[in-house]
Formats: sequence, C-alpha cells, structure tokens
Amino acid sequence: MSDHAGLWTDYKEKKKNRNSVCLGKICISGAEKTDTIVKNAVDELKKGLMAMVGLEPEIVYEDHTVNSSTVCSSGREILDSEEYRISIKDNSLIIEGKSPSAILYGVFDILRTVACEKEVEKSYAEGKTVRPSDPLRMLNHWDNMDGSIERGYSGDSFFYENDEIIINERTRDYARLIASVGINGVVINNVNVKSAASYMITDRYFDKLAQLGEIFAGYGIGLYLSLNYASTIEIGGLDSADPLDEKVIEWWKIKMAEVFKMIPALKGFLVKADSEGRPGPFTYGRTQADGANMLADIVKEYGGIIIWRCFVYNCRQDWRDKKTDRARAGYDNFMPMDGDYHDNVILQIKNGPMDFQIREPVSPLLGGLRKTNQMLEVQIAQEYTGHQIDVCYLIPEFKEILAFKTYCREQDDTVADIVSGKTFGSRYSGIAAVTNTGNDFNWTGNYLAGANLFGFGRLAFDNDLSAEQIAEEFIRMSISADDGVVSEIKDILLPSREIYERYTCPLGIGWMVKPATHYGCSVDGYEYDRWGTYHRADHFGLGVDRSDKGTGYALQYNEPNASIYNSPEKCPDELVLFFHHLPYTHVLHSGKTVIQHIYDAHFEGYDEAVRLSEKWDSLKGKLDDEIFENVKERFALQLENAREWCDQVNSYFFRISAIPDEKGRQIY
Amino acid sequence: MSDHAGLWTDYKEKKKNRNSVCLGKICISGAEKTDTIVKNAVDELKKGLMAMVGLEPEIVYEDHTVNSSTVCSSGREILDSEEYRISIKDNSLIIEGKSPSAILYGVFDILRTVACEKEVEKSYAEGKTVRPSDPLRMLNHWDNMDGSIERGYSGDSFFYENDEIIINERTRDYARLIASVGINGVVINNVNVKSAASYMITDRYFDKLAQLGEIFAGYGIGLYLSLNYASTIEIGGLDSADPLDEKVIEWWKIKMAEVFKMIPALKGFLVKADSEGRPGPFTYGRTQADGANMLADIVKEYGGIIIWRCFVYNCRQDWRDKKTDRARAGYDNFMPMDGDYHDNVILQIKNGPMDFQIREPVSPLLGGLRKTNQMLEVQIAQEYTGHQIDVCYLIPEFKEILAFKTYCREQDDTVADIVSGKTFGSRYSGIAAVTNTGNDFNWTGNYLAGANLFGFGRLAFDNDLSAEQIAEEFIRMSISADDGVVSEIKDILLPSREIYERYTCPLGIGWMVKPATHYGCSVDGYEYDRWGTYHRADHFGLGVDRSDKGTGYALQYNEPNASIYNSPEKCPDELVLFFHHLPYTHVLHSGKTVIQHIYDAHFEGYDEAVRLSEKWDSLKGKLDDEIFENVKERFALQLENAREWCDQVNSYFFRISAIPDEKGRQIY
Repeated sequence: MSDHAGLWTDYKEKKKNRNSVCLGKICISGAEKTDTIVKNAVDELKKGLMAMVGLEPEIVYEDHTVNSSTVCSSGREILDSEEYRISIKDNSLIIEGKSPSAILYGVFDILRTVACEKEVEKSYAEGKTVRPSDPLRMLNHWDNMDGSIERGYSGDSFFYENDEIIINERTRDYARLIASVGINGVVINNVNVKSAASYMITDRYFDKLAQLGEIFAGYGIGLYLSLNYASTIEIGGLDSADPLDEKVIEWWKIKMAEVFKMIPALKGFLVKADSEGRPGPFTYGRTQADGANMLADIVKEYGGIIIWRCFVYNCRQDWRDKKTDRARAGYDNFMPMDGDYHDNVILQIKNGPMDFQIREPVSPLLGGLRKTNQMLEVQIAQEYTGHQIDVCYLIPEFKEILAFKTYCREQDDTVADIVSGKTFGSRYSGIAAVTNTGNDFNWTGNYLAGANLFGFGRLAFDNDLSAEQIAEEFIRMSISADDGVVSEIKDILLPSREIYERYTCPLGIGWMVKPATHYGCSVDGYEYDRWGTYHRADHFGLGVDRSDKGTGYALQYNEPNASIYNSPEKCPDELVLFFHHLPYTHVLHSGKTVIQHIYDAHFEGYDEAVRLSEKWDSLKGKLDDEIFENVKERFALQLENAREWCDQVNSYFFRISAIPDEKGRQIY
Repeated sequence: MSDHAGLWTDYKEKKKNRNSVCLGKICISGAEKTDTIVKNAVDELKKGLMAMVGLEPEIVYEDHTVNSSTVCSSGREILDSEEYRISIKDNSLIIEGKSPSAILYGVFDILRTVACEKEVEKSYAEGKTVRPSDPLRMLNHWDNMDGSIERGYSGDSFFYENDEIIINERTRDYARLIASVGINGVVINNVNVKSAASYMITDRYFDKLAQLGEIFAGYGIGLYLSLNYASTIEIGGLDSADPLDEKVIEWWKIKMAEVFKMIPALKGFLVKADSEGRPGPFTYGRTQADGANMLADIVKEYGGIIIWRCFVYNCRQDWRDKKTDRARAGYDNFMPMDGDYHDNVILQIKNGPMDFQIREPVSPLLGGLRKTNQMLEVQIAQEYTGHQIDVCYLIPEFKEILAFKTYCREQDDTVADIVSGKTFGSRYSGIAAVTNTGNDFNWTGNYLAGANLFGFGRLAFDNDLSAEQIAEEFIRMSISADDGVVSEIKDILLPSREIYERYTCPLGIGWMVKPATHYGCSVDGYEYDRWGTYHRADHFGLGVDRSDKGTGYALQYNEPNASIYNSPEKCPDELVLFFHHLPYTHVLHSGKTVIQHIYDAHFEGYDEAVRLSEKWDSLKGKLDDEIFENVKERFALQLENAREWCDQVNSYFFRISAIPDEKGRQIY
C-alpha cells in the first residue's frame, strides 16, 4: 500500500467514529483467514481504520470453511458467492459472506462508511446485506505495450513500458483501488491487439502475466487479455485464421492449453474482430458466431470465457451513400445468430449503436438478443466527452441506459435487468467500462474524472444507487466530508454531463468533433468522411432519417420503442436528430424550434460551464491545494473548449440556415 | 555519375546528331582546364555525348585566364560571369564564357540540344548567347536531420539520416541534376531549424558540410544553411537572442568566423524568424531589419549574405475576428523598414500573401519594396497542389507571377524585372523554390513532377522561356523525343495546374484543405481555426472582403492594381473571392454566377482530370514501363482526390446556398 495511492483509497483522518466500539472487534465469517484475499482485506481494514480513525481492530475469524478456490461457473453463482452481510452483535461488527471476495467487499463497505463519516453503529444496526447487481464488473484497458494508451487522457500506461510489463507498487495500488469499488475483472491490453501485444500469449510474457494475475486474484479480480484474432497468422505461422479450418483450431487448442497452464489466474479473452481494419471471421466468409464459438469451445475446459465485441461496421462508407447506416450494423451483424453463440461466449455491446457519443439511443441489440449472453460496454475514458479536461460526470448517463425499458418482455425488461442476468437467466452477463486511468499521479488526469471510475464500479455493483449518492460518496471519500464542499461539488458533477451535451452536439446528432483527436468542435469534421457519421445539414434542416422512410434503424427496436423513435412527433427531443432529418423550424416538445434550441443550448451550455468553473473557484482553501489547482487548470481549458463549441456550432447553423437567434446574441 | 541518376540527366541513346561533325571537336574558351567546374563540365559533356550519340569529342582549351576564384560581389557580376556563348567555327563548337560556371552552362546547353534531338549545327549556326535572367537561382530544402522532409512527397531526405549528413553517389548526382538546369544556390536544411539542425554551425558537422560545399562548388552551386535565429540561446548558452545585445553580437562574431573558416564554400544563410512559433527580433521588441542587419554585418567580411524570409504573420488569429487579415501581414511587417536593410540582406518573399495556394494574387511586397534586395520564393514541393500525386505543372503559374506588372515604375516593373535586379539595380536578387526532391528513385515521386524541378531551374535561368518550351524540353530529355508522345504529354502538363485549380478551391479563395496534411478537400477545415485562412461562406455568399470596405489589403498594391482589386467589378474572376465577399448570384466576367461557376468548374475539373488520365493510358508501350506505371498509379489516386473535391465542394455550396445546379448534375 503506497502512501500516495490517490483518490478514495488515500485514507485521510476523519472526525467521526473515532471512539466507535464496534470497530474494536470485527468478526469475519465464511472465509478462511489464510486466503490471500482475506489477508488483503484484513490488511486494508486495519490500515484504513488506523489512518482514518486511529483504531486497530481485533479480527476474529469464524471459519465456515468455504472453499476459496471454487470456480464459479455462472453469473448466478458469482452473485451468490459475492453477496455480503454486515451486522452488529455483542458490540462487534460481523462481516459474513460465502467467499473471500464477499469478505473483501464487506471490508470496503465498512471503510466507505467510515470515510464518508457515517456513524458505523447506525449504519449496520439493522444489518446490511448487499448482493452485487451484475456478475461481471469489468474494466477494459486500451493500453498498448509501448506504454501509450489509445484514447488515454491521464498519462501513459502503468502496465507497460517499451514492450515490457511493469509490476510495481502501483500495480497493487491499482488492484486495491478498483477492488474497493467492486470491480472483479480487468482486461489489461488494448482491444486493438498489435505489435508486441500479439506476443502476450507467448512465453515472452507468461511469467509477468502469471504474477499480474496473482496480484489481481488477491483482490478478487479476474485477469483477461485482449486477443489478436489473427494470431494463427501473426504469431502462429499459418496462412489462415478461418475459424472452421482444422489447422487453425488445432493451433488454438495447443496455444490455449499452454496459455492457461502458464497464466493460472487467467479468466478469458476479449476479442475485437472484423472491426476498423482488424481481421475476423468475415474475412473467411464465416459468421461472428463461428469465430467466437471456436475459441469458446477451446477455452471451456479451462473455465475460460470469450467476450466478443459487437463493434462491427463498415468503416469505409461513402458519405454520398444515404442508405447504408452504421447505426444498423451491430443489430444486422449479430441478431441473425441469436441463440447460436455457445454458453461461454458473451457479446459485449456498446451502450449506443454508434460510438460513445454524449447522447445516443440505447443499442437495440440490448433487448433484441434473447438467447445470448450479453454484456454492456460503456466508456469512462472521456474520448468524446471532454478528454478528462472538461468535467463530465457520466453516471447519470449510465443510470439512464440501465433504466431503459427494452420491452423485450413484460417485466424485468430494462437494460439493468438484462445485464444482471435476471431477464433471460443468462449464464453470464455484466457491464464493462473502457477505463480512464493512466500513470498520472492522481490516476485520472482530472481529479474529478475519478468520480467516473468510482461511480462505474459502484453502479455496476449496485444498480440501485443514484447518481447523486455515488457522487456524494466519491466526494466525501476522496475530497472532503465537509457538507458545504460536498454540496458544491455535487452541484458541479451532477449537471456536468448535460452541460457538456448542451455546448457540444445538439439533439442526439453527435460527431461534430475533430476527427483525429475527438476533442474540440468541427461541425463538418466527419461530414464528408468514411466513418458513417453524418449530420446531413443543409439550408433547410439537419439530422439523419433513420425512420422507416429512411434507413429503417428505428424499427430495430421492440415496440413501442420502435414507433416512438420512428415518429418525429413522439421521439424524445434529445434524440430527435438521431432519428429524423428535420427542418430548422420544426417545433420540439420543449416548444422551441430546432434552430432556436441549437442557439439556446449552446449559449446556455457555455454559461453553465462558466458557472461550474466559478463554483469550483469558490472552493479555494476548502480542500487540498493540489486537487484544487488540478481541477482549476482543467476548467480554464474547458471554458476555451466550450466557447469554441458554442460559437462554431451557432455560427455554422446561422450561416447555413440564415435564421437569426430570437434573442439577438452574438453569432459570427 | 550513377547509371540511375534519373530524370533528364539519365542520358539515353538518341537518333539525331550521331554524325554531327562539330560535336567532334569542342573548344572551351575563357576558363582554365584545371578548374574543378570545368573538369566536371567536360566529364559531363563526354559522358553525355557518348551515351546519347556515341561520340567522344576532342576538347580544346583556349585559356583566357579568368580567375575562377573571383568572388562575385553583386548580382550584376554574377550575371556577367555566368553568361555563355556557343558558336561554330571551323566545324567545331566553341563555348565561351567569363567563368567556369558559364562553361558548365554552355555544356548543358549542348547536351540539352542533343537530348532534345535538335540539330546541333542548325542550333548554333548563328551563335547563341545566353545570359541568366536572375542572379540567384536557388533551391530551398525543407529536409530535417532525422531524415524526414517537411512537406516532402518523394521519400526521405538524401542529405540526412539519423541526424547525420550523408555524402554518397547521389549527392553528386543531385548536384549534376540541378546544375544542369542552372541552379546556383542550395539551402540544404529546413527553414524550421530545430533539434540536431541547430548544431549545424558547430564542429559536429563542419567536416561533412565542408565536403558537401566542395561538391556543390564543383558544379557552380553555392552552399547555404538555414539558421536558427535563437542559436545564441539554444547552442550558445546565452539567455537572449536580442539583435542589439552586445553579448549576442559578440557570440555571433566568433561563431561566424569559425563557421566560414570551417566551411569555406559557404555562401550565406536563410532565416525564418518570428514566424509560426519560431523566435525572432520581435521577441525582443526589435524590428526584422535589426535582426537581419546584425547577422548581415557580421557575415559581410566573409562575402556572406543573409536571406531573410518575409513569412511573418499572426498564426494565432481568432476566426471570429474579421479585421485582422493575414494577407496584410507581410507588407505591414516589412514595408515600414524599406531602405533600412543592409546591402547583403535579401528579403525572400513568397509569391502570394498567404502560403502557396493554387491561386493567389502576387504579394504586394514585390513592387512595394523599392530600396531592398528582393528574392521571389515559389514552391515546387506540391504542398497545397497535390502532393506529387496529382499532376500539377506549375510553370504556367510561375510565368504569370513573373509577368505580373507591379506598376512600381513606368517600365521594367514586372516581378521578373524586379527579381532580375533590373528594376531597382538591386545588389542581389533572384528566385528560390522550395524543392520537391527526395530519396525516391526518380527524385520527385511522381515522375511528371520532375517537370517542375526542371522547369523552375530553366525558367529562373531564362525568364523568357515559355511554359510550353520548358515542358517540351523536359519531355524530350526525360521521357521520349517521339513527337507524338511529346505532344500528348504536353497536353497533360500544360493545362494541369488550371485543372487542379478547377476541381479544388474556386476563384482564389484557397484553404479548403485538410489542415494536418494539406491534401484532400475539407471545405471548413480551416474555417474555424487560428490560421487566418477563411472563406466566410454563409447562405448568401462567400469570400473575404479585402477591399477598402473590408481589411484594406487591396490598397497595399500600387495603382492601378489597387483600384482593380478593390472593385468586385474590375477584379479578375480568378481572384474575385480572394478580394471580395460576394453573393452566390453575383455575375462574373465569364457571364456565370458565382455558384454556377463553382458547380461548372468542379464538374468540369474532374472530367478534365479523367481526360488527362486517359491520355496517359494511351501512351502505354510508347515510353519506359517504369515511368508509365509510376504516373498511372498516381493518376488513379488523383481521380479519387478530384472526385472528392468535386463532390464535397459542390455539396457544401449546394447545401448552404440552396441554389440548384442549372444543369441538374448529381450533387449530394
């Protein structure tokens, strides 16, 4: 445990609970004291309590002889094993669980209670049972072995440098950090597997990976690797990666036997195939299911799973072509084989049909697929949401996504229900986030971006937590437990995503960003390019017609969603330009015309960003100087960015529409 | 001399002149046979004639004891010394000149005559005297010492690799190549001097530079270096580069004494200061003249000159600001000090006020400055003109520039007059091109881009040559002397610049390119950026008002140019959007509206590019396969590029203006 772990695991002195009696003796029940996870949990508990309240508890073990090496073979078993209960008996805290991981999560619950300055006795007086919502709660790293991070905004990788794997104090700190919020799986390399990363599954890296896997296992975190689908060619010396080719299958069998033997803690693989130039089954005229199943069948005997990304689309579209619709691609490519995927395959589905824009409809694959293991993929790396320069607390967005009713059945039909495994009784399910961490001292570049890392884990563990509760926990644990400070920072975090949306792309249209970086405004940046990402603005209006009169994408949804999205009148304002090409004079539900909405949202969005920044300035002296200055510096850049978005978008649409702002504000 | 020197110095067997009597004995008059330049000339003559017509001439020297080491101390002296005369007497060719360089140019004249399959006897029967038009005829390399070339499209540098200077067979081949077209000066490193290049003036590189200088001197080519203005700070350990600071001056004095001693062939320096992030005199509140004069005074005793670039502008402009005008910057920054520059300073002025767009007005500094040595800078590296993918023969543009009447006096007022030194009797003057060469086997990437290298040299040597004559010479010497082939390729080269203009930016507006690469269309690519490069298009019209009602740039010209450019009615069509913001319905001199011109030019420009490509295809089998395939491959890419330009520009302006194409062609 480093002194400078950062964020919320940097336990600071607290005022409350310093004389708490029941922190004096803590009873652990249901796991062996010799288990590494239990030992790590107890270490964490002791150090955390000592640092925060100056107490060293006596630890008592009531061993129910649970076998810690039990391999959970389904999502339900994972949930059963990870559930914990904290109660008070005879002035002692009791942490009960059926696995070491459960104990670990119980410990972090107690540490959180103390860090938030809630009264321990009151918090657990009536007993508190927590069962994780989602069986798989994963982070996906897009770290490259040269040390760079694709779409990383917090420094270089802490896993790699010069094609070597790094294991140091920070490795363990990272495991603690993410275990503390309930993460139980991590994919440690970029889904775009290339260069040295293709050799991850060779003896060049086995030793280090085995060590890494062991460290993570000590915190209940499964190790996963991104796999190069074309490994048979790139490192195997074969001339094919055809999933039905016997030579290919044979190569993988031998390779996987070796890999799982050499990296005992390995839990499976994430695969991006046939996407953005990556090879895949389509190259050989096979289906995505052929590819995924071939690998899944082979890893099955090692308890491995194959997580297969659904991000497959034509990235060489002709902008002149108005019939092809990238939004349709996920559904079109994956739905026909619903039911064909073997039971240790999980399809990992991005939250929207495009690519992590600030506002997208929920992917119709979620609730479309009924016979396939599904995992939701979100992104806390702020690729399109401000690069961890602009503050953009994403938990409200994730809450909306999880609450989305898919109408795949009469009840338990939300995305949350689906990814928890409840809806279809899926063998595996869960939620993954492309992570926002890096080698920056504070892990996430902008200190406030830590709220997304914290919040993603917390939300995945407990879908019922509100965005506000999570923000409050983050602030109290990581910045200050002062009520005034907490309230001000909550007022910064909670509206920040909507503010980012307001000064950037209007009404679900997306993609008005600089193509190379994805930061900063460029209204036409993607308009005449090959990425399938267009706004189709002309003098009369803008938007993409994805109704039945257009690309038909809206009809990929279950009813009544399909009918709602299909109708410009019924479609919610915030998505209306995603689904419809509308005149600037179209009147929204808000009562505003499209063009006036554009002007208002951008002017107001900028003003609101200024207010957030001023709010932060008002906190000077009330929190750690380093944190204050870090965020202040980012706000200065955010305001520049917001000013550009506001003026460029408004100027663009004023110039093209020739319709003036009703309020006569300055447009260029 | 390598077997594969490429382009026109790759002497091939010729049909004519094989029995020419007067090639049998050639008399050299006016230079010592022991001079290196003369020796190189004679070698070239013998090898060229042997390769082309199988003759080995007897060389006779009539030594007039000209001192080959005479330092020419003015442009007029250079011209006197470089003039040559070729005549026939007693069935021998006689080459006369007052310097070894004159003999060298005479030799290349003869080789050109033979290579073009002109009859030698007829060509020189009446005697031919050629005096170069411009005293300084220079190439500027933007080669970096890491081997890359800024805006290079023909492979890496042949001067540098891994921060080392390379001297090999290609070095001499290059000297031959450029001497053969009359180049007499070369700046071998990028004007943006950074990293290792800052150490060019230290003992780390002296030996190699001395060798290089000697090789070039052997072909009458002066060696120049780009200088880091901030050398006193970057390598001198001082904390200032203030040109009036005594410590700075003292450092330069010592440094220059060392540099000129260690690199005896060095002729001077090119300096880019206060430009695009480079430091300069402005940093210290001094004038450009202060900076240039300080250096010039110091190098004067070594016969050195300082070529000072006028590319100084605010590259952090706010796009909202319609008053600041980058086009004004050169004039505004340099005119006030006309007369203050010392007589071994030359201001190097880009042909237009912006930056090598396919169409710009001539810079008003040319003909504005009256008491200052001036050099014209053009660019044959096709940065904004097709990256040596698209064929774009630039000599017609350079002819236009040279023929431009500046009205700086009653006669001899063209740019050609000014840069020849005629107009103002300038001490030094000339013309420089940012070169288009690289390590590609054929030197210029696209073989046809060789016509720009050839043509620039030929035109600088003889301003009176027509673009057609130059094209014809290039084709006959480098590709084929077959009349049919010559005629077809001329028909490709001659209209190619206008075709490139037609499918790219209309009516002088420029800058509709992708910002990072400067290749390919992006109508709004620069519109909301900091570079001072805008089209200001809205629903009603487009263009930049640079008249007296706008930025006033038009008034920087002498009359009547100022009045012509200032008036939308009088302004030539091809520049009208450079000077005026006009409605799409404005009727041009051509009788077309602006919008219809845009549509017609783009559709027709694309069609014309297709015709050029077809014309090339028709040459299959009639010329060297390697050349044929090289150009064919480029044409395929050019057509893709032209299609994108055509469709994007037309779509953009149709969408924004809502005015349909009169001819109803397909717009997206």
